Amino acid sequence: MALKRNIKLTISYDGTKYNGWQKQGNTDNTIQEKLEVLLGKMTGEEIEIHGSGRTDAGVHAKKQVANFHTNSVLSCEEMLEYINEYLPKDIAVHTVEEVEERFHSRLWAEKKTYEYRIINSKISDVFNRKYSLQIAETLDVEKMREAAKLLLGTHDFIGFSSNKRMKKSTVRTLFQIDITESNDIITISYCGDGFLYNMVRILTGTLIEIGLGKRKMESIPLIFEEGKRANAGYTAPARGLFLSNVVYKRR
Amino acid sequence: MALKRNIKLTISYDGTKYNGWQKQGNTDNTIQEKLEVLLGKMTGEEIEIHGSGRTDAGVHAKKQVANFHTNSVLSCEEMLEYINEYLPKDIAVHTVEEVEERFHSRLWAEKKTYEYRIINSKISDVFNRKYSLQIAETLDVEKMREAAKLLLGTHDFIGFSSNKRMKKSTVRTLFQIDITESNDIITISYCGDGFLYNMVRILTGTLIEIGLGKRKMESIPLIFEEGKRANAGYTAPARGLFLSNVVYKRR
Repeated sequence: MALKRNIKLTISYDGTKYNGWQKQGNTDNTIQEKLEVLLGKMTGEEIEIHGSGRTDAGVHAKKQVANFHTNSVLSCEEMLEYINEYLPKDIAVHTVEEVEERFHSRLWAEKKTYEYRIINSKISDVFNRKYSLQIAETLDVEKMREAAKLLLGTHDFIGFSSNKRMKKSTVRTLFQIDITESNDIITISYCGDGFLYNMVRILTGTLIEIGLGKRKMESIPLIFEEGKRANAGYTAPARGLFLSNVVYKRR
Repeated sequence: MALKRNIKLTISYDGTKYNGWQKQGNTDNTIQEKLEVLLGKMTGEEIEIHGSGRTDAGVHAKKQVANFHTNSVLSCEEMLEYINEYLPKDIAVHTVEEVEERFHSRLWAEKKTYEYRIINSKISDVFNRKYSLQIAETLDVEKMREAAKLLLGTHDFIGFSSNKRMKKSTVRTLFQIDITESNDIITISYCGDGFLYNMVRILTGTLIEIGLGKRKMESIPLIFEEGKRANAGYTAPARGLFLSNVVYKRR
């Protein structure tokens, strides 16, 4: 029997304790696995859930989107209530809606936004320490904004990725990078059509090195040209990174 | 040799992991103990630190104030740097300043403000869950504001306290209670001249019961009159509570 209903979820999670979004071979303790097990209990079916994209171990999501197919007769409200009753408190489902059969949370995603949060202070932000990177030395945010302009547009981002075994295209488009300051908190938000493995964290590490005066922004064109990971900055830690939005095309 | 310099600290902490502010007999893992051990290493002296007041196990502080006496020749900046280098990341010292000899962080405190944070939503706030109480049923905030007015002023608050062995006066003055809403977050802030053991958590539990329609606000005068703990509401959990400010008289 074909599974007919296509259900779309929006999800937030504190990634601190998890091995990322995606089930990978024997790796357990992933967000995907937690949801699939719970949805399986809810529906009595074997459920496969598709996320809009992976998030690495330790990365958070303010808004991840996923979908799954089911023959369950439960209403969307009943599903929402059931899921949030049994999910661990560091994962929450915000919306459950029935969507057209062909909708696919990854293939239909048009734009994604990631945010990286930095506490630029010598003093620990005790309530945000698991959701940010603390940097004691003052960052030159204007310089970082200048450098960010060089990253915009369509490029082969292979030099900003850790994955060496990529068969598919590594060309991506960055539409926008915003760097905002509020008290000691610097937030870098990246909006693009897709992101390679570790790409946001390496872009962030590169911008941080520029903000600290340890790297010149003129180094960026060479990273694109040579496509070598070693030319780019360090991989900023996962705990500062949030998947914050996924936008879909109107079809 | 008398210890001459009197040093005032402002401190924030995530209380999740700690047995509260104050050393109590053999109870270790308190904020006070962590600071005293570190200040002892820094100065080579045995340091006793005085907080503006205790916070219970699991309660947080955005701004706690404390002072200690020392003969150390370190500058305040050197102390600030040393302390924040070696403190655990869930405790931070924001300012270090030398104050007049007689200053005492508890005895000189004129007003204290505590905040209690509630997430009024069926859906878990994954990033605030350790710093709030989640309540799924909708709270009637207007009714809570009405009830809060009955708590203001000078009263014997013994009915709003868990401590039965109190020798000293249990009369306190509540100057102001503000209840604000922002999205799903309801914050109740209490400003008073002092607070009894568990008082803010029991005031909060009482206001929550009123907001849920489980208690009438007319029950409040009887709690003051009879002074019985059993007449008041439940003790709201520690994780939603923050000591947020301490104000001193100008002398």
